[in-house]
Amino acid sequence: MADGIEGQAPMAFFIGEHLPAPGSALSFNILDRAAQDSYNMISAHITNINYQAKVQAIIEEARSNGSTRVYIPGLEVEDVNMHPDDLVASGKVIGVTSQWIELDSLDPLIASASRQVLHHEIGYAGFCGLATLLIDGPKTAQQNMAGYCQSIVQGLAINAYLTINIMLPAFGPSLGVKQEEINDPSQDSGRIPPDVLYDELTSWDIWNTIRTSARYTSRLGLALQIEYSLPRTHTLKRWFAEPIRYLIIDSSAFLLNTKGYPVLTKPHQRLVTQFARKNPFYLLSNTRFSEGESEDPADPADAEFPPLVPKVRTGGARQTVSVTPVRRDDPESYRKYLYYHLINLPPPPPLDSFGAGYQDYLQSPLQPLADNLESMTYEVFEKDPVKYDQYEKAVFLALQDLRQQGVEDICVAVVGAGRGPLVTRCLRAATNASIDINMFAIEKNPNAYTHLMKKNRDVWGGAVTLIKTDMRKWEPPNTYVHILVSELLGSFADNELSPECLDGVQRVLHPTVGINIPQSYTAHYTPIMAPKIHGDLVSRATSSNSVDIYEVPYVVMLTAIDFLSQNVNGEPNIHQAWEFKHPVPEDELEHECGFNDHNQRESIAAFPIPRRGVIHGIAGYFECVLYESADGTGIVELSTRPDTIDAKSKDMISWFAIYFPLRTPMSVPDDSEAQVSFWRHTDGRKVWYDWMVETFSFVLLPAEGGTGSSPMTIMSQKSFGDYTRKRVPIAVSEICSSKKNGCLM
Amino acid sequence: MADGIEGQAPMAFFIGEHLPAPGSALSFNILDRAAQDSYNMISAHITNINYQAKVQAIIEEARSNGSTRVYIPGLEVEDVNMHPDDLVASGKVIGVTSQWIELDSLDPLIASASRQVLHHEIGYAGFCGLATLLIDGPKTAQQNMAGYCQSIVQGLAINAYLTINIMLPAFGPSLGVKQEEINDPSQDSGRIPPDVLYDELTSWDIWNTIRTSARYTSRLGLALQIEYSLPRTHTLKRWFAEPIRYLIIDSSAFLLNTKGYPVLTKPHQRLVTQFARKNPFYLLSNTRFSEGESEDPADPADAEFPPLVPKVRTGGARQTVSVTPVRRDDPESYRKYLYYHLINLPPPPPLDSFGAGYQDYLQSPLQPLADNLESMTYEVFEKDPVKYDQYEKAVFLALQDLRQQGVEDICVAVVGAGRGPLVTRCLRAATNASIDINMFAIEKNPNAYTHLMKKNRDVWGGAVTLIKTDMRKWEPPNTYVHILVSELLGSFADNELSPECLDGVQRVLHPTVGINIPQSYTAHYTPIMAPKIHGDLVSRATSSNSVDIYEVPYVVMLTAIDFLSQNVNGEPNIHQAWEFKHPVPEDELEHECGFNDHNQRESIAAFPIPRRGVIHGIAGYFECVLYESADGTGIVELSTRPDTIDAKSKDMISWFAIYFPLRTPMSVPDDSEAQVSFWRHTDGRKVWYDWMVETFSFVLLPAEGGTGSSPMTIMSQKSFGDYTRKRVPIAVSEICSSKKNGCLM
Repeated sequence: MADGIEGQAPMAFFIGEHLPAPGSALSFNILDRAAQDSYNMISAHITNINYQAKVQAIIEEARSNGSTRVYIPGLEVEDVNMHPDDLVASGKVIGVTSQWIELDSLDPLIASASRQVLHHEIGYAGFCGLATLLIDGPKTAQQNMAGYCQSIVQGLAINAYLTINIMLPAFGPSLGVKQEEINDPSQDSGRIPPDVLYDELTSWDIWNTIRTSARYTSRLGLALQIEYSLPRTHTLKRWFAEPIRYLIIDSSAFLLNTKGYPVLTKPHQRLVTQFARKNPFYLLSNTRFSEGESEDPADPADAEFPPLVPKVRTGGARQTVSVTPVRRDDPESYRKYLYYHLINLPPPPPLDSFGAGYQDYLQSPLQPLADNLESMTYEVFEKDPVKYDQYEKAVFLALQDLRQQGVEDICVAVVGAGRGPLVTRCLRAATNASIDINMFAIEKNPNAYTHLMKKNRDVWGGAVTLIKTDMRKWEPPNTYVHILVSELLGSFADNELSPECLDGVQRVLHPTVGINIPQSYTAHYTPIMAPKIHGDLVSRATSSNSVDIYEVPYVVMLTAIDFLSQNVNGEPNIHQAWEFKHPVPEDELEHECGFNDHNQRESIAAFPIPRRGVIHGIAGYFECVLYESADGTGIVELSTRPDTIDAKSKDMISWFAIYFPLRTPMSVPDDSEAQVSFWRHTDGRKVWYDWMVETFSFVLLPAEGGTGSSPMTIMSQKSFGDYTRKRVPIAVSEICSSKKNGCLM
Repeated sequence: MADGIEGQAPMAFFIGEHLPAPGSALSFNILDRAAQDSYNMISAHITNINYQAKVQAIIEEARSNGSTRVYIPGLEVEDVNMHPDDLVASGKVIGVTSQWIELDSLDPLIASASRQVLHHEIGYAGFCGLATLLIDGPKTAQQNMAGYCQSIVQGLAINAYLTINIMLPAFGPSLGVKQEEINDPSQDSGRIPPDVLYDELTSWDIWNTIRTSARYTSRLGLALQIEYSLPRTHTLKRWFAEPIRYLIIDSSAFLLNTKGYPVLTKPHQRLVTQFARKNPFYLLSNTRFSEGESEDPADPADAEFPPLVPKVRTGGARQTVSVTPVRRDDPESYRKYLYYHLINLPPPPPLDSFGAGYQDYLQSPLQPLADNLESMTYEVFEKDPVKYDQYEKAVFLALQDLRQQGVEDICVAVVGAGRGPLVTRCLRAATNASIDINMFAIEKNPNAYTHLMKKNRDVWGGAVTLIKTDMRKWEPPNTYVHILVSELLGSFADNELSPECLDGVQRVLHPTVGINIPQSYTAHYTPIMAPKIHGDLVSRATSSNSVDIYEVPYVVMLTAIDFLSQNVNGEPNIHQAWEFKHPVPEDELEHECGFNDHNQRESIAAFPIPRRGVIHGIAGYFECVLYESADGTGIVELSTRPDTIDAKSKDMISWFAIYFPLRTPMSVPDDSEAQVSFWRHTDGRKVWYDWMVETFSFVLLPAEGGTGSSPMTIMSQKSFGDYTRKRVPIAVSEICSSKKNGCLM
């Protein structure tokens, strides 16, 4: 176990040895040796080379008989590496199914035999009490994904508790094909058909196909194989959204430093650091030693780990690794390096600590207007170190501006005061500005009100006038309010009905100098891939709720997600939906016909999507201008947008994002577009959202009038001089509506 | 009403007048006049020009105020054309919502006003008791389909009974844009953005988007507008799959013959004939007369309808219509022509008559092995005029072959004899071949057995030996069977377990000369668009069954479907899944391990899809060789494949197709591919199918190693000399399994 940074809870991690002794029986000796080497666990093949030979002989016999079918009998004692004993029950063993099988073979004998071998091994592993298995990915370049998926899905059904993790490379398809061959189709490897696309996302395509065919079951995960070549950042971000249960780091991913010890390149270190947030298990495979190449290792006590002195350029380009003449690496040194890297990880950002356990956990949005919140809920809000600082700054600026305008007897009111933290900050801002204020606190929740009384008595010295009422019914005594302060925002800005509340109280604001804090707020959205959340919803969908659970905007700490619409710098394209400003001009409220229609909104935006993927739903954020000083010199803002939060309200934790699900994931190709529409509806009694996604791709058509031939045919005939890019519809979602779960006014 | 062909039930049709007097109030006068003109019904606008002027004034006022919102008040008596009275309650009035509104306008004032007008009109129409409405399609070239769909979906929710039909053109988008402009983007109509694709399927794209956003509700239908230009056959076939409730035929679709009377071109006649199978209502709109252009019509009594003398080439190419100098058309003459065309339609094929009412009706497959069928079920089978003829021919050929081989004391057995029709045919074949046979009939259904006894007594003269047993348990007396006849086939060949049954009885066959009729059968499949069926399943999906109803292969008379994979001649690409031959070689049965594994099958096939669409499921068919004579001169077959049924067993009605649903429709672009996989699984106790679809598109990549840029970007930079076409995955379905509904052995 790792020691943590002082003051920080240690992040636990486990490092295992991957296939330490291929082909030989699993025994306590092997496990003990691994434990001595400080490995927490090992992976081991379930069956052995004896079994492989036996099965291959059966296949050959069937083939020579001209048979199209083959029957593989069950496992016998000499076929297996493990037994149901304390060793396996220790929980330190991960089963690995045979890697010589080809579940997706186009040869029906091999495919059938492979499937039977797999199912025997899964059955036996479950019988032995293993909890988790690693299974190789497909081998025939996606020629028979259906056969592969069928085998996996059937395998999942054999035992209700085993989890299966597919071993796939982070970069490139795992076909035993050399990197050079992938980009050089003239080299007929014999295994990659020239008509199948291979790029950085191919390995992810394979995973996406498998998990989709298995309906996103949580019993299926990934064991991502890390080698020397890494894909680019956007591909790593794509992997980050997936359920990576294991990181299998091969020794070939390491360089040797000047002293001959293994170290990870900086990009590899960044990858491990980033993926550590997913709490995977780490498995080290030492292919450098599988052929017995290593010389006697130097005394491990001499090992030091100086910073990497680059001997070669790293980072994406394929380079030859120059190995220092003296090798001092041994399997143990790789593990030690990884251990020290993990133990020295920088502390996670505050949001991660605060949100520990909340990642991708779906919460129904609060209805603070309809419901009375509990004290613990308020307490959670109050932990945010940033938000109240911002409010205090805003009130401070506002007070200064009012003084400059010559306003006297300034009256400040906090509506929806909760347990009073905003009141405290208003008083503090007034003190710092050396201005006396008349302080009001309005709160409808009778329980919180009691707590406000306590605060007034014990902390505020009775300086605050408390009123227990719904703010829309408040009648202030003979005075206007000069600064009306509220914190009614939800993760999508207006989704907790801040506009409706403030509409009802803005009449207390001074008609010319009255200030609303916040002055305005905006909702923002972008389409995302969120496989963990979607899988969660799929598994939650039961008989009675299968429609409704998708038609709820959830508050959620989005973690295992990928932004599908990105600019060339990898930043997400996020679109502003709409804005609310306060106070609302009087004539707008006058034209109100009782249906709250001035608070209706709609928005539509097109999001370019550079790389293919799957849209599971829409992520929502908000921004807010608490106050902008009259001369424009100061502005105090809040933001949950991932691209502006650091600039506007760094480390703010009070709001997670919001997530609008799509019942049916929408696949999008490279260079496509998602058009997302949102509506904020209200009928005067409640408020809800509708949302919808349309997807488009693009084709190139010759500029002159077409004959109606397929665009691809035309392109094969003509040169490219004169073409236009046309948008073609792919698919459209339902119109999703949260009306059944709308917020009551 | 139409008189029918003698002996044929008349096909009822209704012809209505479309918008006879735009802008004026609906009155009994108008309806009476229409009835006098022999129209069965009329369509009429719900509101009038008064209302249009009123609303437009409100919009302009809001605009000049700089307001972003507009409120349209409800309807007043001077705004409407109709009232809840006997006229409307007569059922002869179809409401038409205002056509000057633009639900999809990008101007928020116009869009908001349009939506409110629409909803007022829908509410009022429902109040008046109208049953059905026509609503214009979108107007802004798909710039705001989301806004349009939102308005329609909300409109559907206003009244639970009204059906809404979207008016869309069969050919080209209805934007008031001239045909020439669509194919000539240099003419900036101002309404078609140059970056949006327009082709023959664009109108269908629009419908597909609308109905998908509305979740395939059956309360939404199509009113297809037919004009002079027609799309090509494949587009008409695509429309045929959709819920066309109305055909709106404009006078511009007609030519004038040499006598000056209106007639339809041959392609138009074919369209009407073909679409008549969908039993639409017909609406005639007479735009030629809307400006008061017509001269006094000649006496209708003089009207004749000679065959069309083509003055211009028709059929797809846009041509100028030369109008004869003398016009003798009037609105009445158009209606008369259509009436006479409909009344003289050729009789439908036997399958249509037999299947009347069964089109696209989902039936769970029979389980004749597990269940006992009712007499009526057998009776339905026996109505097939073709099947038994084929069996008789096959038995005849087989008897002749046996005689030629010198076999004597020929023994013929029908296993699964039902009510005996095959027995009758075997006896008849023997009589025709002048061969005496020993006739056995085996049947497990005790009720059918009783009926066999009656037949034997009253029809067969006691010539048949009856045995009441499951055929797999039958022990014939001291003889082998020379011809084993069975009719155990289901719509997917083997899905009623014919292989399992025949495996169990083949031991009674003579080891060298024994003949099984059928000798072999094959299953076939192809991906299809089937919106009606999918909508049916969506509406059936309730809490308790939402998983299962999609995992059942249904027997269904596929009618409103489109074959997505077609060759250049428009014929569907149908792939053979697998074959069963009888008898099975002995060693195959010997290697049987009790799991029936020799009857497992799998199949995978790639289907090229030329034009974009939606895959709702897989259609399945079968073929069967009843008998092929030993010298190969005669072969007797059955087929339900739409492309071979006429050649092999024309007019056979016994089997509908089979349909394997997908829970989630899969959208495919132009020039794509669907890879469909099927598995026939068995565990020795039951038999079931698994199926799965993967979709792919194609990109062009330069032949040399790529830099990883987006393929589209690359193409914009290079000329086309050297490229390869690469396949890219789009999406994959779940692995669907009918295991829960498997057939018990």
